[in-house]
Amino acid sequence: MPNLFKNYRIANSKKLDLDAFDPNDAPASVGNRAADEIALRKVQDEIAGFQNRLFAESKQSVLLVLQGMDTSGKDGAIIATFDRTHPQGVGVTPFKAPSSDEAAHEFLWRVHPHAPAKGMIAVFNRSHYEAVIAERVLGLIDKKEWKRRYAQIVDFEHLLIEHDTTIVKCFLHISKAEQKKRLQSRLDEEEKHWKFNPNDLVERGRWDANAEAYTDAIRCTATMDAPWWIVPSDSELHRNLMVATLVRDALANLAPQYPPLPAEYRKIKIV
Amino acid sequence: MPNLFKNYRIANSKKLDLDAFDPNDAPASVGNRAADEIALRKVQDEIAGFQNRLFAESKQSVLLVLQGMDTSGKDGAIIATFDRTHPQGVGVTPFKAPSSDEAAHEFLWRVHPHAPAKGMIAVFNRSHYEAVIAERVLGLIDKKEWKRRYAQIVDFEHLLIEHDTTIVKCFLHISKAEQKKRLQSRLDEEEKHWKFNPNDLVERGRWDANAEAYTDAIRCTATMDAPWWIVPSDSELHRNLMVATLVRDALANLAPQYPPLPAEYRKIKIV
Repeated sequence: MPNLFKNYRIANSKKLDLDAFDPNDAPASVGNRAADEIALRKVQDEIAGFQNRLFAESKQSVLLVLQGMDTSGKDGAIIATFDRTHPQGVGVTPFKAPSSDEAAHEFLWRVHPHAPAKGMIAVFNRSHYEAVIAERVLGLIDKKEWKRRYAQIVDFEHLLIEHDTTIVKCFLHISKAEQKKRLQSRLDEEEKHWKFNPNDLVERGRWDANAEAYTDAIRCTATMDAPWWIVPSDSELHRNLMVATLVRDALANLAPQYPPLPAEYRKIKIV
Repeated sequence: MPNLFKNYRIANSKKLDLDAFDPNDAPASVGNRAADEIALRKVQDEIAGFQNRLFAESKQSVLLVLQGMDTSGKDGAIIATFDRTHPQGVGVTPFKAPSSDEAAHEFLWRVHPHAPAKGMIAVFNRSHYEAVIAERVLGLIDKKEWKRRYAQIVDFEHLLIEHDTTIVKCFLHISKAEQKKRLQSRLDEEEKHWKFNPNDLVERGRWDANAEAYTDAIRCTATMDAPWWIVPSDSELHRNLMVATLVRDALANLAPQYPPLPAEYRKIKIV
């Protein structure tokens, strides 16, 4: 873990105040914009290299979980992080409102099939956390139920970790003022119209309730093995650089290796 | 369809002689290596732009099917084609030997769930064609059965096409001499050891039988709506440029559009 992110790491803590984090912080920044862009490019290449080894080795896997308010930049972070990576090595699953079949099962049923296979990187664009955030804020589940789910999430993630999955959980932290700008741009810019959903306004009206639900969820599911990272996200570039660096560090820590050629193949000559 | 590829397009033809195609041809080349690399970069950016519109529109989809002998470069073509594309918009499915559950169903059962959703690009790294090529060469099915499957494949692809999926089917055509080099490099280069599979030698021993199976399969499933493209693949760069160009052209032909903002949202101001 790079020391420069240590203040943004939530692990095993019963206290968390999101307001204490400035969405304009730039812990991953190495200097000015140009330097940060060069740094990001380097991290992207490193991720691509590690992914090759991870896939070749096929013993370990990575799960990147992205949560955050609307417009916090989950899509943008995915594009930037895996810009140079083999698309076959990264499976991205966006979790939307559950289908009727999914809703007829417990909340982890639809999530488990998307856990990464050995050698793979899985990305959850929203995730199992929607079931303790969105469903709670919508009043679909009561306090007893969402508290019960925190423990179930910890157990579920523990299962994956014990089977050699590294979980990187990022909360993309934006300010309400920045969200205003970004929602307005969806109304103003032709190429963004399709992203506008009137429900975003309803969600914005529930900003405080959502923030409270996130705070509780992060507090209660941040463990030493699967900490949460608060990613300051008012700047797209700084957000991307931090998420990519976290993924790069997770991969570096796994130190995946190309397997050697078995001895019995060493003398083969192709004819 | 660009005119320069017309000699590599197999549609509705009962005749096909793979030996008549030179794996060293370069129909997509615009000049020297440097110029081709610049051209590829431009096509990659165009694909990324079209993918955004395709996803925003969410009405049409693309399916890229890649087949070819071992080492023909299916992985490399995928990396190159989608180098600049949002990983969430491209789902890559590698089809390996069927699991026991898959083998207990007819051959399209495991394929259908991976057809692209509206707005998505799906890539099949190997595909439903393995069931008329590999299974035939292995003697797992008889002539009556693989001939029956050609018709079933045409019907299956027709179903997808009628539901607004454009299918781009590429046969990556390499020479036996080029395969020898590439297999040998898996034995000689440390970072490629993991790719070496002794079964590749067995498959190489069946080169002619595999070529015959491909020829039949392509002949009998090449339709006006879902033609096959013979992609000369002894040069990685020329192969990548042609596959990427075919995908770019398919997307351009769909002409996906950003949806307009519904009239009732036009006066909204975010507060």
